[in-house]
Amino acid sequence: MEFSLGLDFGTSAARAILLNIQTGEMMASGSSTYEGGNNGIFTDAQQPLLARQSPTAYMNALERATKIAMAQFTEKGLDLTSIVGIGVDATGSTPIPVKQNLQPLEALPEFKENLNAYAWLWKDHTAVEEALAITQKAAELRPEYLAKCGGTYSSEWFWSKIWHCLNADPTVFGAADSWLEQSDFIPATLSGIADVSQVKRNICAAGHKAMYADAWDGLPDKEFLGALDPKLADLRDRLYNRAYAFEEIMGYLSAEWAERLDLPQGIPIAVGALDAHVGAIGAGVGQGKFVKIIGTSTCDIMAFPMEQAPKDFYGVAGIVEGSVLPGHIGIEAGQAAVGDLLNWWVQQVLGKDSGYHAVLTEQASALKAGESGLLALDWNNGNRNILGDQQLSGLILGQTLATKDYEIYRTLIEATAFGALKIIKLVEAQGVEINEVIATGGIGHKNELFMQLYADILGCTLKLVDNPETVAVGAAIMGAVAAKKGGEGFESIEKVLDRLSVAASKSYEPNKGSHQVYQKLFCLYSTLHDAFGYDQEANLYVVMKELTQLKIASNKN
Amino acid sequence: MEFSLGLDFGTSAARAILLNIQTGEMMASGSSTYEGGNNGIFTDAQQPLLARQSPTAYMNALERATKIAMAQFTEKGLDLTSIVGIGVDATGSTPIPVKQNLQPLEALPEFKENLNAYAWLWKDHTAVEEALAITQKAAELRPEYLAKCGGTYSSEWFWSKIWHCLNADPTVFGAADSWLEQSDFIPATLSGIADVSQVKRNICAAGHKAMYADAWDGLPDKEFLGALDPKLADLRDRLYNRAYAFEEIMGYLSAEWAERLDLPQGIPIAVGALDAHVGAIGAGVGQGKFVKIIGTSTCDIMAFPMEQAPKDFYGVAGIVEGSVLPGHIGIEAGQAAVGDLLNWWVQQVLGKDSGYHAVLTEQASALKAGESGLLALDWNNGNRNILGDQQLSGLILGQTLATKDYEIYRTLIEATAFGALKIIKLVEAQGVEINEVIATGGIGHKNELFMQLYADILGCTLKLVDNPETVAVGAAIMGAVAAKKGGEGFESIEKVLDRLSVAASKSYEPNKGSHQVYQKLFCLYSTLHDAFGYDQEANLYVVMKELTQLKIASNKN
Repeated sequence: MEFSLGLDFGTSAARAILLNIQTGEMMASGSSTYEGGNNGIFTDAQQPLLARQSPTAYMNALERATKIAMAQFTEKGLDLTSIVGIGVDATGSTPIPVKQNLQPLEALPEFKENLNAYAWLWKDHTAVEEALAITQKAAELRPEYLAKCGGTYSSEWFWSKIWHCLNADPTVFGAADSWLEQSDFIPATLSGIADVSQVKRNICAAGHKAMYADAWDGLPDKEFLGALDPKLADLRDRLYNRAYAFEEIMGYLSAEWAERLDLPQGIPIAVGALDAHVGAIGAGVGQGKFVKIIGTSTCDIMAFPMEQAPKDFYGVAGIVEGSVLPGHIGIEAGQAAVGDLLNWWVQQVLGKDSGYHAVLTEQASALKAGESGLLALDWNNGNRNILGDQQLSGLILGQTLATKDYEIYRTLIEATAFGALKIIKLVEAQGVEINEVIATGGIGHKNELFMQLYADILGCTLKLVDNPETVAVGAAIMGAVAAKKGGEGFESIEKVLDRLSVAASKSYEPNKGSHQVYQKLFCLYSTLHDAFGYDQEANLYVVMKELTQLKIASNKN
Repeated sequence: MEFSLGLDFGTSAARAILLNIQTGEMMASGSSTYEGGNNGIFTDAQQPLLARQSPTAYMNALERATKIAMAQFTEKGLDLTSIVGIGVDATGSTPIPVKQNLQPLEALPEFKENLNAYAWLWKDHTAVEEALAITQKAAELRPEYLAKCGGTYSSEWFWSKIWHCLNADPTVFGAADSWLEQSDFIPATLSGIADVSQVKRNICAAGHKAMYADAWDGLPDKEFLGALDPKLADLRDRLYNRAYAFEEIMGYLSAEWAERLDLPQGIPIAVGALDAHVGAIGAGVGQGKFVKIIGTSTCDIMAFPMEQAPKDFYGVAGIVEGSVLPGHIGIEAGQAAVGDLLNWWVQQVLGKDSGYHAVLTEQASALKAGESGLLALDWNNGNRNILGDQQLSGLILGQTLATKDYEIYRTLIEATAFGALKIIKLVEAQGVEINEVIATGGIGHKNELFMQLYADILGCTLKLVDNPETVAVGAAIMGAVAAKKGGEGFESIEKVLDRLSVAASKSYEPNKGSHQVYQKLFCLYSTLHDAFGYDQEANLYVVMKELTQLKIASNKN
């Protein structure tokens, strides 16, 4: 028996699992939240768009989570030397300013109180203006860069954040010898790499998020970066020229970290990857399979063999070779607020604790499609795809004086499903065949109504991979592939996925009657989406009236 | 010393006051809520638009409220025979199906459980379809009818409701010998009138709400009503041919009601009027004075001397001779949900009790104009003016994941103020001069923030008449005028108003900086208003973006 250690760094916690790489059985698991801030996220009341994390807290949580898993592993009498690989995934784009020796600036006494020296979490949106300027400059000078990232460069991504740091806090920018994505920082640190130039950056995070592509020899060229700011052109020399897929080995577990994690020294560690892609791997992504990782936000992941891959097209967040599976084109899209949208309603507005989700869900389950007369846009955190516009915001309409909290809760779920359908229709319209929609992530296994509404709105069977450790399983698969590839008995990545990925535990079928109503509501959603999302004329006169008609019709049924 | 008894029937309670008609001093007052239903309103879970009341409950509440006031009056050693007049106001249009002897159907055992036999409260919207059909038929056959009621006949009004009763419950319709407005039913009942044909209907409720006008000899002609339904043409013969202003005497207090109210028999009772108009009288309405009665909904009232009155114009609810003051043209406009909109947020959505208004108000007071980035339409109960469209509904936009309950609360107040400004601008645009805006009603004296936001948004001084008995004072003025007009020492209605109406207790001045921001927000409000309110193309692309810009600008100040 051989095992792989999967390490998954989510938005608020680190998870560790040990996977039997012959049988796919999960032998042990542990998790631990990041200390400090609000659920591990540091915020600033003066800057509502700011969200930072502590790299030190990542490593402390990793240690706690792994020790829990290792204790279970050894209690079962299993042999430490049978652990053959380690895979790591993390959130992104979450760049961290570091010294040449990989020490994060946040760990230095002079920067301990400065959130600009911390990790810039994926959902930090302080760089809205820089993102706009990058998009404009690229449209002018390098339109090919934009084609790979859906036409709009996001404030959530690498260059926007680093440039914003340069503009907002030149001291931190000046003190950083380089910047590492969280998904590179962690496997490199575990490998004991002592020089940032030796870190094998992962293609997953480099891809569209750092505008990396083989077509233009890696990162954006210095002329382009210099047109943004000469200091960014200088920084390029201190970053990297090549990015790698997870089949490559980053390094081997260092003595220091072997001791901290109760593991043997020298285990091979795969190049990192982003949690969304790795979740898709855990859920068995492959040709024709549209994987939705539904959590605080949603990531949509597809992978196509190179030769069957679609051309560049507008409206998805990224199209990157090797970003999902080695040897495949990866397509990534997503929605910026899904679980976060429901948490907003329950916690920020209603002032309730998380247990209230179940109360609202039960009440909302008794409603019929169209019965509330409500419609919403799921843009409280901007629109990631199709519009790629952080300046968009939420919208709820159709309220009467009788509208209840649970009706709005259901409407918000519906809004995220309409947003999902909008993306699926875009992908299909450009010739990509979707045979299967697979949902995974935190919400699906907690909320039956959520899943049923998605099936009713998407109008197709929705498979649920409800193992909360799916992402960590994907990370363990990465560790297994990196350790075994090219070795005796290794067949193909597809075969490994067939054997080790998590099977769907449940299928949701659309209710025909509900789907018919939701087709009408989706037209109204699209009317609103396009009216507020595009600079064009629209006629909205019918929207409220049709909602009223659907409400009346629903009450008659 | 002489006194007048003012009887005010609001949406949930009856009030009685005794006013010294030489000095304007209020000598005694009492109030009592209507028993039954939800705060006196009977609803039906299957029909969310339904709102009915019990005429029997009106009279029981009247008895309790008057006895409280009379006990205070006699305790002061005042003489019962010095009460010279009674004035009555009530909500409207609130039609009640009655027998020939004025007995409401609701009081008959066979109809006790049938809400269609009850009073159809002003805010009952079950007649949406009939209102649309009346508007269409009038546009086709009698455009002059529509000109007097702002271009759209409302589901809240007399003919819509009666026609809906005919369609929905022909038994109740058939059992009714006639229909009386609440504001006619009560003074007629107190007068002991035993034949419905003898009731002097009030011009205030008849005016646009029953499509009554001298120009076409009273109610709509039988040909028009027959085109709606022949049974409505038949009903016209059992209604009335002439309506009266409150300077006329309806009758004299009957022996039965004198005993029930602890009052002497034979006191003259004025013809009735609607609470909004009477509130304006209590607040001293007159030329150039725009009176806003702000409560669950808002009524805007103006009165112009005949010769200076504007022509018919689009967008207000009614233009009726004598409806506000005898010898004047009355103009009425309004908003269907104001206090109700805030109550909806606090009670229906947040699930808090009414004490939470103060908590939200305090938090919302700390915000600056534009700071929340939010914008709303105040249409949860449809739009009464300018659009006259019950099928419109509420809208909130600009939400982020950090948006709080109190930010939305403030935004809802702002939305009602933008709606108010929209009406003021319409009236001014048609050549009517407004010199003074006077606010009265329930909210103004409870909520400083509300008043300040109105001043900031309207951009002018806002006077507050904060006596909660202002409407009842207006009713007492009616009683005094009816009793004294034409008698010795009576000068003019204007002089009586100068002496007896309630003085403003406070003025709110606009904050210049806030007003500048609100001018920008009003443009965005108008964009939304027109986009959803009219069948025309609109460009909404800038709305969310400009809100974000105002939010950023607000944080920088």
